[in-house]
Amino acid sequence: MRIAVLGVGLIGGSIGLAARERARAEVVGWGPRRKTLETALALGAVDRVAPNVEDAVADADAVFACAPVELLPELVAQALAAAGPDTVVTDAGSTKRNLVDAIDDERFVGGHPIAGAETAGVENARVDLFDGAAWYLTPRADTSGILFERLHRLLVAFGARPSAIDAQTHDRMLAAVSHLPHVLANVLVTQAASDVADDEPLPRTGPSFRDVTRVAGANSEVWTGIYLSNRDAIAYEVDAVIERLAAVADWLRSADAEALRTWNDSAREDRRRLLEAGLQGGSVTEMRLSVPNRPGIVAQVALALGKAGVNIADMALSPAPDMRSGSMTLWIAGDDDAERAKQLIVELGFPAAVVEA
Amino acid sequence: MRIAVLGVGLIGGSIGLAARERARAEVVGWGPRRKTLETALALGAVDRVAPNVEDAVADADAVFACAPVELLPELVAQALAAAGPDTVVTDAGSTKRNLVDAIDDERFVGGHPIAGAETAGVENARVDLFDGAAWYLTPRADTSGILFERLHRLLVAFGARPSAIDAQTHDRMLAAVSHLPHVLANVLVTQAASDVADDEPLPRTGPSFRDVTRVAGANSEVWTGIYLSNRDAIAYEVDAVIERLAAVADWLRSADAEALRTWNDSAREDRRRLLEAGLQGGSVTEMRLSVPNRPGIVAQVALALGKAGVNIADMALSPAPDMRSGSMTLWIAGDDDAERAKQLIVELGFPAAVVEA
Repeated sequence: MRIAVLGVGLIGGSIGLAARERARAEVVGWGPRRKTLETALALGAVDRVAPNVEDAVADADAVFACAPVELLPELVAQALAAAGPDTVVTDAGSTKRNLVDAIDDERFVGGHPIAGAETAGVENARVDLFDGAAWYLTPRADTSGILFERLHRLLVAFGARPSAIDAQTHDRMLAAVSHLPHVLANVLVTQAASDVADDEPLPRTGPSFRDVTRVAGANSEVWTGIYLSNRDAIAYEVDAVIERLAAVADWLRSADAEALRTWNDSAREDRRRLLEAGLQGGSVTEMRLSVPNRPGIVAQVALALGKAGVNIADMALSPAPDMRSGSMTLWIAGDDDAERAKQLIVELGFPAAVVEA
Repeated sequence: MRIAVLGVGLIGGSIGLAARERARAEVVGWGPRRKTLETALALGAVDRVAPNVEDAVADADAVFACAPVELLPELVAQALAAAGPDTVVTDAGSTKRNLVDAIDDERFVGGHPIAGAETAGVENARVDLFDGAAWYLTPRADTSGILFERLHRLLVAFGARPSAIDAQTHDRMLAAVSHLPHVLANVLVTQAASDVADDEPLPRTGPSFRDVTRVAGANSEVWTGIYLSNRDAIAYEVDAVIERLAAVADWLRSADAEALRTWNDSAREDRRRLLEAGLQGGSVTEMRLSVPNRPGIVAQVALALGKAGVNIADMALSPAPDMRSGSMTLWIAGDDDAERAKQLIVELGFPAAVVEA
């Protein structure tokens, strides 16, 4: 298998390392900066460096576009123009709607790994960066099922946990769990630093302040793009936070101990639920379904399960010899999820058989 | 030296461990829960357990009241009533103005160590919990200098970095760097968890969400008290955050890339300054000053240096034989800070001599 990585920073470099070591793929890298490419080559994140996008993409089975979000529409279009009919093209951008709306091609699947590190740059790339990490995929109804399955399997090989989601829901969710935390961290440090008279020292900060503000002032080049590309959803979240804060200020001013306690208790419970939602437990069930071999089926099944929070640990497609139908095998983690997956598949109109391990 | 610890949880237990191991003190513990006291004894956080506050405080050189903030005024008053004239009484509460206003006694110095851990309870107490940690002290003009110095030296022995601050400034600062982060973390998780339709799974969260929300839903018993005891300052901070967020929402809606970039850049710079403010660098300068031996001098010097952000690494008082004057030795960390300390001391009207190492 040959993989092209366009942009070999922290994410692209880690994709290269994982693809080479865990998927035994040949990795071709391209990027705008010569020095970064040389570092990627020296670190073993790519097998070779291509002089341009066209050369990198030629004969690739999968292409990962890893660039700031505002550059992705052009980069992905360029990759698709150069890629063959059997190449899946994806990206690693933090927002998805702008890009998915701009690209009308059955070979494209929007992607977003929920992984990162405090320190960007290919020199911090790691083969295990995606271990256990959620990796959102945003297929559309016309996305090629075969290409989607290839990408899904590749991400599982990387150690990630891909799940399908529609682009709009993705952007709304990410506004709440990623972009908003960055906004609040920025506001917190700005306020703590400015809320001091000229003749006073800056306040001493403790470990919790450091944690809460770790993402403050993240790379401006990257984040200005993210803020703009998801600005409606983020502004909506900011408005909602303002409303919640106004309520808290009221409770404080009226010394409403009961309201503060209830709010604090529910925050603890909400955090527990949110963190557990990211965990995967129980055994893995293998499930086989017969599906007509037409476009959109794979995306339809993946989106239905993704929407219900069911994690597809892995998937495989096997077309029938006449290519008019095929079987799709899914591995579902967690006993409850397996039961739900079976129901959902039956509701979609496909017969599902559970294969005992 | 004998030390009484009233309330042996995470903080009180760690004080006990540090006092025994690093200040070679005998530690007597008291607390409302029998089982906690037994654990403290078993862990070596106290030498013995007292049946009541009076017994614990008898013959103590220093008393640490470690209880939820709303219980402190009564506990500190009880300790002072039982303590001898040569006992310094302090506390470890997260807000200071309410308590300092309530207690009118030259033996009392409000205190607040900026240390903690994710997990409360004496079983998580550690001898090194205060290593390098800021420890605010809020002396008043009438605080005994001798008792303040004893407490200061004890905290240095614990490994902490005490600094004096007036109670109101303390509470305003803490509202910004500690209480507000808790409020925002709570709001973030509540929103992320509720911003989901009934048929949708909870969003997957990544490492940055976990960091940003680590303090969400902290112990409701403790935090309801903190919120209420500092409610005016926190409400003020919340209002200021609302204003800042409204500006961010405007920039987002008008796609103002330049404003977003500038704001993000300044947040990065602010965070750097805030974290560096907590660091201590350079050599330590020994400085001796002659002071009249009257109440308030030590507090006056400590507050003046604390206000200027100068860290007193250690201090010692040596009264002259006639007790009408004395010399005060200060160890100041950082060359710039030593120079500033000297100026400030001269401005206060005391001659200062720098003793070369």
